[in-house]
Amino acid sequence: MRAPTRATLRLTELYAPIRSELAESQAIFRDELISDQGFIADLCGHVAQFHGKLLRPALLLLTGHACGTLRPAHSVLAAVVEMVHIATLVHDDVLDEADVRRRAATVNRLWGNERAVLMGDFLISHAFHLCSSLDSQFAARLIGATTNTICEGEMMQVSNRDNLELTEGEYLDIIRRKTAALLGTCCLLGAKYAGADESRTEQMRRCGESLGLAFQIVDDVLDLVGDEAEVGKSLGRDAEMGKMTLPLIYCLQHGTPEERTELCALLRTGEPRRRVAEIARAMGGIEYAQGVAARYVAEARNASAGLPPSGARDSLNAMADFVLARHE
Amino acid sequence: MRAPTRATLRLTELYAPIRSELAESQAIFRDELISDQGFIADLCGHVAQFHGKLLRPALLLLTGHACGTLRPAHSVLAAVVEMVHIATLVHDDVLDEADVRRRAATVNRLWGNERAVLMGDFLISHAFHLCSSLDSQFAARLIGATTNTICEGEMMQVSNRDNLELTEGEYLDIIRRKTAALLGTCCLLGAKYAGADESRTEQMRRCGESLGLAFQIVDDVLDLVGDEAEVGKSLGRDAEMGKMTLPLIYCLQHGTPEERTELCALLRTGEPRRRVAEIARAMGGIEYAQGVAARYVAEARNASAGLPPSGARDSLNAMADFVLARHE
Repeated sequence: MRAPTRATLRLTELYAPIRSELAESQAIFRDELISDQGFIADLCGHVAQFHGKLLRPALLLLTGHACGTLRPAHSVLAAVVEMVHIATLVHDDVLDEADVRRRAATVNRLWGNERAVLMGDFLISHAFHLCSSLDSQFAARLIGATTNTICEGEMMQVSNRDNLELTEGEYLDIIRRKTAALLGTCCLLGAKYAGADESRTEQMRRCGESLGLAFQIVDDVLDLVGDEAEVGKSLGRDAEMGKMTLPLIYCLQHGTPEERTELCALLRTGEPRRRVAEIARAMGGIEYAQGVAARYVAEARNASAGLPPSGARDSLNAMADFVLARHE
Repeated sequence: MRAPTRATLRLTELYAPIRSELAESQAIFRDELISDQGFIADLCGHVAQFHGKLLRPALLLLTGHACGTLRPAHSVLAAVVEMVHIATLVHDDVLDEADVRRRAATVNRLWGNERAVLMGDFLISHAFHLCSSLDSQFAARLIGATTNTICEGEMMQVSNRDNLELTEGEYLDIIRRKTAALLGTCCLLGAKYAGADESRTEQMRRCGESLGLAFQIVDDVLDLVGDEAEVGKSLGRDAEMGKMTLPLIYCLQHGTPEERTELCALLRTGEPRRRVAEIARAMGGIEYAQGVAARYVAEARNASAGLPPSGARDSLNAMADFVLARHE
């Protein structure tokens, strides 16, 4: 066991109102993936290390708690959204040719791309299987729509590789689909299954979506300027893989012709991240991206402002600040 | 448009009792995948060429027709099982590094592995999304369980690459999961949604499963001795990828020590398919595998023998013979 980081300790504190339900959802997660095939059990044991911050199940459960009463379906759905998330991580690591994830080797690094593709398929299949154990089709239909959207976002991202003309609007459209949609769905499901009315449910979906946009922008900033040991995964892959992110988009749009020419040249030659990061920082791209993330966090806090006072609501608000300030 | 092959013409005849429902299911398939993103539409248009024999939707619809009355849910489910099937083809082609599928280039060949992985994810996501549009969770839960099983089968297959000790029992367990389970589910769903009782539903599931086993054994024989132009896809990949199939398993188990040594050496060096096929034929491996396939087809016919006489039942029986005799 690694010693818990400061951030993990902080989250444990924030998750206090949902401690037992979160533990239950992790047990459901493990039980769903039990296999009599030894090597499948090994793979499942390995990806369990990718859980990390449990942001998605925690959001679903905290929203449910803040909107009404948690029901058994909440714990099942918390396991489902986490399983969808881990499936996308496993396939993402194949696409990004990444070696490290949450301080552990990626599935593709250890077992090759083939097993990583199949493991992602296995996880997404089990997520749908688990989701359809619930009484109604509501969640299954929404989860299906959400994974449709995630796939679109991922495909748009791949199609825009090395597209130095990508606009901020196009970037936001991509991350809204590939990341923010699932966080929006987490909050929507949490509210809906706690009996919230339609307007509250939609408000919470927007809260999750805004948090998701902020989360991905911060993630992209960390990929550029974060500390690999602290973040716990391969960094600098975005620029290497020709993935345009907000700091770079800002610099390319607002730099002088000379600055743009220099940055483009660096990006085209796959220059090491340190030099690209220096330029992005000097040109104000990092600061700008952090400002946009802060605006989305404020939107998320606005969306949850109407909730009745509760420990869960306070945790939701604190999570919004955590998303903005995180270094890992 | 290519001219229809003799086999296609024969199938069109067999599918006569379900012509309108099959057309409806193809329209549902297309509508589910409509996208405003041009390149996603291109990919969807391309994989539409992979439909081929429409074996799975046809089995589902013919079974439904033979067991009772076809309902709108049948056409939706027929589209779902075809979508699951095409998703597995797209990922299979990545794993097999295949170039040709149904006489068209594979997705990985044309657009690379990344887009092929994402396209498979997109298709499986839409399959679940479509399935959860139905009233009850029954089909969604069963489809989820079936895709769990398919993934297990695929993972077992990858883990047994280059395993020259693979037994016939292990081989059958793998193909039961990766291929036969979905055909069993097709027949089960067809019967269930036509109002069949539990015993008939289980009987039809077994019918589909037996057909699936026969189908995969014939597929593996064709991979070894088939004509690439006639079959319409890359052949010889099994031996090249170290995938042990029934003819080879038989030869390795029943050959003289000298024959086994020669065959093992050929398989280890990735000898061209023609030479491996010659040996497998000479040692009786092809004939043996065809015999096992014939036994499963007989089992399938037995399972459907109790159905009341109808054109759909006759088509089911004829399809069983088609599976055995097919050259493509």
